[in-house]
Amino acid sequence: MDREFRILKIKESVFEDNNKDADKLREELKGQGKFLLNLMSSPGAGKTTTLTRTINALKDEINIAIMEADIDSDVDARTISETGVPVIQLHTGGMCHLDADMTRQGIHGLDATDSELIILENVGNLVCPAEFDTGATKNAMILSIPEGDDKPLKYPLMFEICHALIINKIDTLPLFDFDMEAFIERAKKINPDIAIFPISAKTGEGVDAWVDWLRTEVKSYQG
Amino acid sequence: MDREFRILKIKESVFEDNNKDADKLREELKGQGKFLLNLMSSPGAGKTTTLTRTINALKDEINIAIMEADIDSDVDARTISETGVPVIQLHTGGMCHLDADMTRQGIHGLDATDSELIILENVGNLVCPAEFDTGATKNAMILSIPEGDDKPLKYPLMFEICHALIINKIDTLPLFDFDMEAFIERAKKINPDIAIFPISAKTGEGVDAWVDWLRTEVKSYQG
Repeated sequence: MDREFRILKIKESVFEDNNKDADKLREELKGQGKFLLNLMSSPGAGKTTTLTRTINALKDEINIAIMEADIDSDVDARTISETGVPVIQLHTGGMCHLDADMTRQGIHGLDATDSELIILENVGNLVCPAEFDTGATKNAMILSIPEGDDKPLKYPLMFEICHALIINKIDTLPLFDFDMEAFIERAKKINPDIAIFPISAKTGEGVDAWVDWLRTEVKSYQG
Repeated sequence: MDREFRILKIKESVFEDNNKDADKLREELKGQGKFLLNLMSSPGAGKTTTLTRTINALKDEINIAIMEADIDSDVDARTISETGVPVIQLHTGGMCHLDADMTRQGIHGLDATDSELIILENVGNLVCPAEFDTGATKNAMILSIPEGDDKPLKYPLMFEICHALIINKIDTLPLFDFDMEAFIERAKKINPDIAIFPISAKTGEGVDAWVDWLRTEVKSYQG
């Protein structure tokens, strides 16, 4: 049976200094042993499908909880609820990103007492979410093949602030004019340390390497 | 030979009431007989390829000029310059959208004295550009098949404010789980009057109907 979930309307933050508040949230989470992953992408790059694969691969060894942020609708939380892990749908009321206080509101609304890994699926947007530190332990982004290989040139900040870059929909490579080598070179030029995972969330190809990276990050965080 | 173009750094607007300023810009453009189309979409939905097809179909009958807005890079202006029409690359310096004053700065920077149709390719983003009236005569958006059929549920404002909806990359329909009927129903529920054009900017399929719509709009605007 699908897990029940609630919808939470996020209030606009009252804090003036988001960076300071994000550092504070990171400390709070560290004290509770909770790893927070901030997952970002364009609309339709495959965040929810990738997330479903990730949850199913890890849920037996790590306690996971999910926050789905969207301007409207509950379609993503409904999909994630099928995995059986705790999930909450956050409605941003038109806001194009989450900041640290909005993320904190989400965590408080979530049934996450035992969670070791909380994943925030941010609003589908390559621009604004890159500008607001959510207090996450690590940032990850998804870029899908149909979006094109020029995106690091156009949205450099997103590539700069992410620790992991998932390249999704590689099963569609034959259909699109996507130069993988040029794309990776552009991403690495902005962020030489970024970990890169070409996957197909649809077929499952490459997902293991991404899951291994995330597992290692969570375990080393827990010490 | 490709047409030369300049890169203009857009300054943040000083106007407090963007809606009022947008109405003013619309009036100014009406006085000059210039139709302004604001073209929006997610990153990688195919704005530039669709634009290239549109320009090549119309440039012999209508004087066209193009404004390419991006946070960084000049890749799109370079592509458009191959069509030979006047083009300017606008750099928003991190800003996620254009408002009316930023659009006006772009028009002033553009060699558009004789232009009857100015097309603004807005920043790739389904959220913020929907919230800021650019002063455009008409708004159009592109949603591409790989993005999924649930987007009207998640980004309703974008679908609400657009006069035309281009559904791009229909050549990839067999590869993706995209329910066209459900998608159109969702879009029409938000905006019953929206004109819908399924196309493949890659193969050219369906582009004629979109171009016909735009031609008719421009001609009827000119009276």
